[in-house]
Amino acid sequence: MAVPFISEVKRTHTCGQLTAANVGEEVVLFGWVHNRRDHGGAVFIDLRDRDGLTQVVFEPDAKEAHEIAGSLRLEFCVGIKGKVLSRGKNVNPKMKTGEIEVKASDLTIFNRSEATPFLIEDNVDTSEEKRLAHRYLDLRRGPLQRTLMTRSKMNALTRAYMHGNNFLELETPFMGKYTPGGARNFLVPSRLNPGKFYALAESPQLYKQLFMVAGFDRYFQIVKCFRDEDLRLDRQPEFTQIDVEMSFVTQDDIFTIIEGLLKKLWGEVLGLDIPTPFQRMDFYESMAKYGNDKPDLRFGLEHIVLTDLIREHGAAGGVPMMWDAVQEKGIVKAMVVPAEKALSRAESDKLEDFAKQAGARGLARAKVGEGGEWTQSPLSKTITPALRLAINQACNAKPGDLLLFQFGKESLVHTVMANLRVHVAKKLGLIPEYGSGGQWKFLWVVNPPLFEFDEESNTWAAAHHAFTRPHDEDVQYLLSDPGRVKCHRYDVVLNGFEIGGGSIRLHDPKVQSEVFQALGIQEEEARTKFGFLLDALKFGAPPHGGIALGMDRLVMLLTGAESLRDVIPFPKTKTGTDTMTGAPGDVDEKQLRELHVRTVPLPQK
Amino acid sequence: MAVPFISEVKRTHTCGQLTAANVGEEVVLFGWVHNRRDHGGAVFIDLRDRDGLTQVVFEPDAKEAHEIAGSLRLEFCVGIKGKVLSRGKNVNPKMKTGEIEVKASDLTIFNRSEATPFLIEDNVDTSEEKRLAHRYLDLRRGPLQRTLMTRSKMNALTRAYMHGNNFLELETPFMGKYTPGGARNFLVPSRLNPGKFYALAESPQLYKQLFMVAGFDRYFQIVKCFRDEDLRLDRQPEFTQIDVEMSFVTQDDIFTIIEGLLKKLWGEVLGLDIPTPFQRMDFYESMAKYGNDKPDLRFGLEHIVLTDLIREHGAAGGVPMMWDAVQEKGIVKAMVVPAEKALSRAESDKLEDFAKQAGARGLARAKVGEGGEWTQSPLSKTITPALRLAINQACNAKPGDLLLFQFGKESLVHTVMANLRVHVAKKLGLIPEYGSGGQWKFLWVVNPPLFEFDEESNTWAAAHHAFTRPHDEDVQYLLSDPGRVKCHRYDVVLNGFEIGGGSIRLHDPKVQSEVFQALGIQEEEARTKFGFLLDALKFGAPPHGGIALGMDRLVMLLTGAESLRDVIPFPKTKTGTDTMTGAPGDVDEKQLRELHVRTVPLPQK
Repeated sequence: MAVPFISEVKRTHTCGQLTAANVGEEVVLFGWVHNRRDHGGAVFIDLRDRDGLTQVVFEPDAKEAHEIAGSLRLEFCVGIKGKVLSRGKNVNPKMKTGEIEVKASDLTIFNRSEATPFLIEDNVDTSEEKRLAHRYLDLRRGPLQRTLMTRSKMNALTRAYMHGNNFLELETPFMGKYTPGGARNFLVPSRLNPGKFYALAESPQLYKQLFMVAGFDRYFQIVKCFRDEDLRLDRQPEFTQIDVEMSFVTQDDIFTIIEGLLKKLWGEVLGLDIPTPFQRMDFYESMAKYGNDKPDLRFGLEHIVLTDLIREHGAAGGVPMMWDAVQEKGIVKAMVVPAEKALSRAESDKLEDFAKQAGARGLARAKVGEGGEWTQSPLSKTITPALRLAINQACNAKPGDLLLFQFGKESLVHTVMANLRVHVAKKLGLIPEYGSGGQWKFLWVVNPPLFEFDEESNTWAAAHHAFTRPHDEDVQYLLSDPGRVKCHRYDVVLNGFEIGGGSIRLHDPKVQSEVFQALGIQEEEARTKFGFLLDALKFGAPPHGGIALGMDRLVMLLTGAESLRDVIPFPKTKTGTDTMTGAPGDVDEKQLRELHVRTVPLPQK
Repeated sequence: MAVPFISEVKRTHTCGQLTAANVGEEVVLFGWVHNRRDHGGAVFIDLRDRDGLTQVVFEPDAKEAHEIAGSLRLEFCVGIKGKVLSRGKNVNPKMKTGEIEVKASDLTIFNRSEATPFLIEDNVDTSEEKRLAHRYLDLRRGPLQRTLMTRSKMNALTRAYMHGNNFLELETPFMGKYTPGGARNFLVPSRLNPGKFYALAESPQLYKQLFMVAGFDRYFQIVKCFRDEDLRLDRQPEFTQIDVEMSFVTQDDIFTIIEGLLKKLWGEVLGLDIPTPFQRMDFYESMAKYGNDKPDLRFGLEHIVLTDLIREHGAAGGVPMMWDAVQEKGIVKAMVVPAEKALSRAESDKLEDFAKQAGARGLARAKVGEGGEWTQSPLSKTITPALRLAINQACNAKPGDLLLFQFGKESLVHTVMANLRVHVAKKLGLIPEYGSGGQWKFLWVVNPPLFEFDEESNTWAAAHHAFTRPHDEDVQYLLSDPGRVKCHRYDVVLNGFEIGGGSIRLHDPKVQSEVFQALGIQEEEARTKFGFLLDALKFGAPPHGGIALGMDRLVMLLTGAESLRDVIPFPKTKTGTDTMTGAPGDVDEKQLRELHVRTVPLPQK
C-alpha cells in the first residue's frame, strides 16, 4: 500500500541534516532528484532541498520503490522513507551528509519534470538571458539559494537589532506626490482623479522626517524604493534600503547605531568581528587622496596633489600643460605605481587606453631612474630638474617607480584618477576582480560641502538634499560664501562602495529659510515641493537625522555575489524588462481610457 | 553656561519611565510641552514623548530655566535636566510617572511651535479632513501613537515567529506584468519600453508559487499590495499583507502555523491565551446558518433555512410569495429575535428599513403568541396552521419571539439576512458597535466550491483563483459536474471579519489543465495570462499551498481602532487623495512625453 506522504507521513529531516548520529533512524525526506546513478541493481540518487543533498539508495529488495526509482529523472519532485545507514569507508567529505546514506523503503513521485533547459548546478555557463527567462529553475541553483537565504537572515538580524534598540517599524506610502526636479520617478495615472498622477516613492525621506515631527523618536523600515533611471548593469528600477531616522541625536549617535548593525551582520553571517568605531575621513581629504568620496582602503596607491607645487614653479617649471591647467583653475594629481609591482611597457600603454575610456585626454607618465631622472616620458624633455625633484619628493618616488599624472578640470582629474587607482590595484593584484578578498575596510566620509556650484545654471545647488543641516559655525556664511559651508552629511563606505548615506536634517525654520535663499528657491517653489514639510517644521520639530543603507549592495558584498541581479529573486534587465513574465506589457484601450491616458506613438524616423 | 543638550548631555530616560525608585536621581528628558500651568512662582509642564508624560516643575531658584519656562507654549520641543522628586501625597494615579516630578535645573528650547490647528489630545472632535491635512500633528495623539507602536510590535513578533519556523523572507517585484481580468491594477507607463505598462502587484501570488517551484520550501513576507478599486471607507489603494507559502503541506499544516502566529500575537499584545485549534466550519454550513462565509460567532441569531419545508407544503401552505420563491429556485430563511430581547413595534419597523437598504424588497415578520399563533404579520391571514406550526418548530420559536423572513434569490437572501443578523445583534447589545467587546471568535471556513456559476456570462468561473486545488475525490467531476467540486480553499475569520484566506495550489499539470478546461480558459489565453507559471509546473513543482493575512485589519482588530485609516500612518481618502501632500498631482508635459503617454480630457457634458 502506498505510503500517505505529506497527508500523514511528514518530513522528519531536511536533506542537509543527517549525520552519523542518525544512523539506524527511520527518516522521511522530500526534495528533488539532483542526480541519479544506476549501478546495475541499486539505484542511487542525491536528493536535494534548500538545505543540502542526501544520498538515497534504492535496492531491489524494496521492490516497489526500486521499480519507481527506475523511472526517476533529474528534477523529479519526490518523497522517500527509509533507514539511515553509515557509508563506512565511503564517506564523502565534500557533503554535509557525506557520512550517511538513506536506504529507501518507500518512494513516491509528487511531480515529474521535463528536461530542464539548463542543468541545476552551482556553476553554469548558460546565458543570463536564458537563466532569467526560467528564473524559477535558476533559483534552484546552490549559489542563488544560499545568497537569498543569507539575505533573509540579514533581514531578520537587522530587524531584531533595530527593534532591540527601540526603533519602530513604520510604513510609508509607495504612491506619493510627484515633485519635479528630483530623481526621475515612475508615475501612476489616477483613475479617480482624471489627469493626475501619483509618483512611486524614490525614498521615504519626507515621511520619515514627519515621523520625527510626530514624536515617534526612532524609525526604521526595510523598504522598496523606485527610480526610473537609465539602468546600468548594477542598477535596478526597484531596490531595497534599510531606512533609519532618529530624533535628538548627533551624527555620532547615528554612526554608533549603524556600526553596531554592521558589526552584528558581519558577526552573525560571516563570523567576523569587525572593529568599531569605523575610520572617519574628511570629504576633502578623500577627494584629494582618492579622487572620490567612496575610497577603497584595502590598498594604498594614494593620489598626490601637485597643484600648489606646479603653481610655485610656474611657467618656468617646464611642463606647460600642467601650468596651463593650474592657471585655468584646474588641478594636477599624480599616483605612484611602485617599482616592486613593475608593469611592462605594454601594460603601461594599456593604462593610457583605460584613462581615455574614463574620459581623459591622455595619461602622462614617467619612469623614475636610479638618480631620480625620468624615462619613458615626453615630460622628461622639458621639465626642470628642480620641479622633477620636487615632484619626486612629493610622491616619495623611488627608482623603478612609475608616476602617472592627470591635470585639468578638477572633477575630471578626480574621476579619472579614482578609476585608474582601482584599475591599477586590480592589475597589480592588490584586490581581487570581485569580492572582498577577505578584507573589510569600513569608512565614514564626513563634512562635505552643503552646496555644489552648478556651472550650467551658474547657481549653487544642494549637494545632497535641501534639508541637510549646515555646521553651526558655517551658518554665518550661508549667503555670503556658500561654497565654504560644510554640513552634517555622511556616507558609509565599504571597499570602495557607498553602502549608505544620510544627514542631520534642518529642523530650525530660520536656518532652513536661509538655506533655501542661498539655493535661490523661491517661497512659491518651496511651497509646491515641500509645503507640508515646511509647515511641519513650524510645530516644534525636534532635532533629527537619519541614514539609508542600500540593502541589495550590502547583500552583494556580504555574499560575494558578482552582480546585483544575483541578490534579487526576480530582477529586471538593463531595459527594465522581466523576460520571464514579459513585463512591461500591453494594456487594452478600455483600461487606459479608465485611467484618462492614451499612449503616444513614437515619432516616425 | 548653557547645557550642551544632545551633543554632550544625552537623554537618560523617556517620559514614561520614572517612578518612585528614581527619586533623587539627576535625569535628562527630551520631549514636547503637553500642557503648562503657571502657579504664580513655579511653572509646571507635562513633558510628553512617545512613551508617556512626566511632570516637570521650574522654580524661581533655577533662575535661567525658570525664565525660559515662562516663554514655553504648547508643543514647544525642549530638553530639561533636573532632579527626580517624590510627589508625596500628591501622587497622580492616572499617570505611569505619577509618583514623581522632576525639578528642573536646566531647560533648552530645541524648537518653538505655532499654535496647532487642533489640540494634541487623546480625544479630539476635529474633522478627519483637518486631521489628515496635518497628519504629523494628528500622529502625536496618544491613540495613534499607541496603535502604530503596537503595529510595529506585531511586525516584530510576526517576523520572529516566521523566521523561528524556518520561513525565508524573500522579496517579490512590485512592478510586474499586467494581467487582464483580475482585480483592477494600478499601471505604470514604461519609459524604456514605449507604449508598454507595468502593473503594480495586487499580491505576490504567482511569485510565491514560483518560490516553491524553486525549492525555497517556506516563504513569507510582510508586503504592500495595490488595488485600484473604488474605495469604500474601509479600503485603501495600498494595503499590507502577511504573505505565506509552504511546500509539502496539507491544509492542516498551514492552519497550525497560522494559529500559532495568531496565538502569539494575541498573547504578546493583549496578554490573552486564545485557544487553538480554531473551530472549523464547512462553507455551506456557514452560508446556511449565517448567510456568508465570515460569520461573527460572538452571538447566536442563526438563520433557519425553510426552503425544504415550504416546498413540502407547496401552494397549499398558504404563503404564495414563499412558494413562488422556491419554485423559481430561490430560498427561504428565517431568524428569531428572542422574546427576552423584545423590540418595540417601532424598532421592528426600522428593521424593515434596514433590510430594504441592504437590497431586500421588504421584511416579512411575525410575532409568536402564547399559543403559537402569529400576530403583527400579514402572513398570519393566509398561512395554514400546519405550515405555521412547522415553521415555529423549525425555528424553535417561543411565545413572544419575533420571526424575521427573507425569500427569493439565494445570494440576495443570504446577504440581507447576514447583514440583518449583525444589525440586530448590535441593536440587542449582543456585540458592541466597534471592537471585540472582549470576545475573540476565530474560525476556519473550509471546503468551498471550486467554481461559481456566473449567470451573466452563463459559464463557470473560478470562485477564488484558477490555481486552487480541488479535493482529490472531486477531480472526476471537474468536467461532468463542476458545481459539486469542492476545493482546498480556506478563510480565517475573526468576529465577522475575514482576516485571511488561502488555498492549497494546483501543482499537477494534468489536473490544472482539466480545471482550465472546466473554466473554458483556452490554451492561448492561459499562456498569455500565466504562461510562466504553467511552464514552471512542468519542472517538478512540489505540492504547495499558502495564505495571506490582512495586516491592516489585524492591527485594527487587535488595537480596537475604529477605522483602517487609524492603523496606517499616512492613509488616502475615499477618492485616493492624500490631503497633506496633495497627491495625486499634476505632471508636466515633458515628463509625460518621456513616458510616451498623454492625458485625455474628460468628455464635455
